[in-house]
Amino acid sequence: MSKSTLVIVDPATPLPPGTPEHAGRLRLADPDQPQVLVSDLGVTRGDGIFETFGVVGGDIQAMEPHLRRLLNSAVLLDLPELDLEALERAVRLAVAEHPDDELLVKLIVTRGVEGTGRPTAWAYGFIGEDYSPRRLDGIAVVTLDRGYRHDIAQTSPWLLQGAKTLSYAVNKAVLREAARRGAEDVIFLSTDGYVLEGPSSTVIIRTGDTFVTPRTDQGILEGTTQHALFGIVTDLGYTADYRYLRSEELTSADGLWLVSSGQQIAPIISLDGQQIPHDPELTQTLLKRLQSRDS
Amino acid sequence: MSKSTLVIVDPATPLPPGTPEHAGRLRLADPDQPQVLVSDLGVTRGDGIFETFGVVGGDIQAMEPHLRRLLNSAVLLDLPELDLEALERAVRLAVAEHPDDELLVKLIVTRGVEGTGRPTAWAYGFIGEDYSPRRLDGIAVVTLDRGYRHDIAQTSPWLLQGAKTLSYAVNKAVLREAARRGAEDVIFLSTDGYVLEGPSSTVIIRTGDTFVTPRTDQGILEGTTQHALFGIVTDLGYTADYRYLRSEELTSADGLWLVSSGQQIAPIISLDGQQIPHDPELTQTLLKRLQSRDS
Repeated sequence: MSKSTLVIVDPATPLPPGTPEHAGRLRLADPDQPQVLVSDLGVTRGDGIFETFGVVGGDIQAMEPHLRRLLNSAVLLDLPELDLEALERAVRLAVAEHPDDELLVKLIVTRGVEGTGRPTAWAYGFIGEDYSPRRLDGIAVVTLDRGYRHDIAQTSPWLLQGAKTLSYAVNKAVLREAARRGAEDVIFLSTDGYVLEGPSSTVIIRTGDTFVTPRTDQGILEGTTQHALFGIVTDLGYTADYRYLRSEELTSADGLWLVSSGQQIAPIISLDGQQIPHDPELTQTLLKRLQSRDS
Repeated sequence: MSKSTLVIVDPATPLPPGTPEHAGRLRLADPDQPQVLVSDLGVTRGDGIFETFGVVGGDIQAMEPHLRRLLNSAVLLDLPELDLEALERAVRLAVAEHPDDELLVKLIVTRGVEGTGRPTAWAYGFIGEDYSPRRLDGIAVVTLDRGYRHDIAQTSPWLLQGAKTLSYAVNKAVLREAARRGAEDVIFLSTDGYVLEGPSSTVIIRTGDTFVTPRTDQGILEGTTQHALFGIVTDLGYTADYRYLRSEELTSADGLWLVSSGQQIAPIISLDGQQIPHDPELTQTLLKRLQSRDS
């Protein structure tokens, strides 16, 4: 039995008023068979958007924040209006049809075949990698220049910074650069020295009793897991703050983490070869709370 | 009959020594049917490379420069070694099987399905848009900030500038921004004021009897059509030069063009709303020579 599920949404745009909703709109398909046309702009231009939903114990985490972020990406890319309700049902169906209750669902919306103006969309449920080593032993991380100033999203919105697009070749290339430097992940810095985000995660820094994450007006994504984490740490009596973080602040931190839907949370134990303080007990507390959160 | 052809190359990497080459390696497939898996990194991450070959009168233009550039992109993306000879045969087959003799062939190589280490590759032959209005009437162009310094490829190679990747969502977004500004195409500028390239073309500037194009050590592509054009203008008695171009030099030019495999050459008649000198006769001469070139 295949360990993945695929639900195709057609159309991904709202139905004309009065059209009866019918079962045919969501279609279960075989993920081991080709399902995408070579003329789809998602393939030819990385012209589309995505979200990855974590599923723990059968519960889909952060549904609403993910859909809100998808919508924001769609606006940044001038995509046609999407039917978020249909996309949400596709994610739920991909989970319901999957034999496991710990999985990831990747929801993808592409601009579709050139000239049709008709987005292609699907939800793909699959088993993620084993994140235990990252969560337990921590990760070595390097900082890399993203090449942009921290205010790029304001000055040059056509560069799509802050949108979660399918054009992620750079996000994969930096992981290979990290591996060449003996590390497992990356924190992007702006050219003017601000801390941005990981290639597929949000940066969390602890200084004393305060947890901080970079402000999202720097062309970075609003972290769905970070949002949940801030609720948790506040509940634990810590302070949580969004602000501009200078790169120098990373190495003087009392704790550093990357958080994302798949790994949930991974402690950074070294940054650019320099050791970072690590409190395994605190990380395990945060991990357990993240995994058992309600939504 | 479908006005497009599709040739799938499997494998796209060299065969083990001693393996007999067999017909099954290149496979004609139906481009109107899905041929790509949803788990292919070309779709999920725009993690792949491409080249678009112009075909005029049945002749494939600039085969060798395109393949050399593809190889350069593959190196920048750390892709496995490719079998360029098999890829070349796929392009030729896509042309041979196509009913027309004026077409474009898009050769795509993706990193393949995650974890397999096995690239996916295909050649897709199709009829391009009608470029006559661009070539004859010229185009309105706007300059847009690419967000990077001109030396980004040297300082931060992980940003993949200078590779022709499938992560081209920005290259499409800037065309929408151009349309909002009443223009049809874009010239990218570096943050430090240098002229770079178009989103899918090379910039050519004429100053007196000299044709100039920006140096390619600025994270931009080596233009295959520009290369052919430089041979032509030299043959016509002009001088041709590669150098750093300041953005101010664009508006004081005696002529500006964008060149690429599809459109071949299009004169720029206005830049950021300012009129640019245009010599239709010269453009037509260059177009005819580009279309009738040997290779």
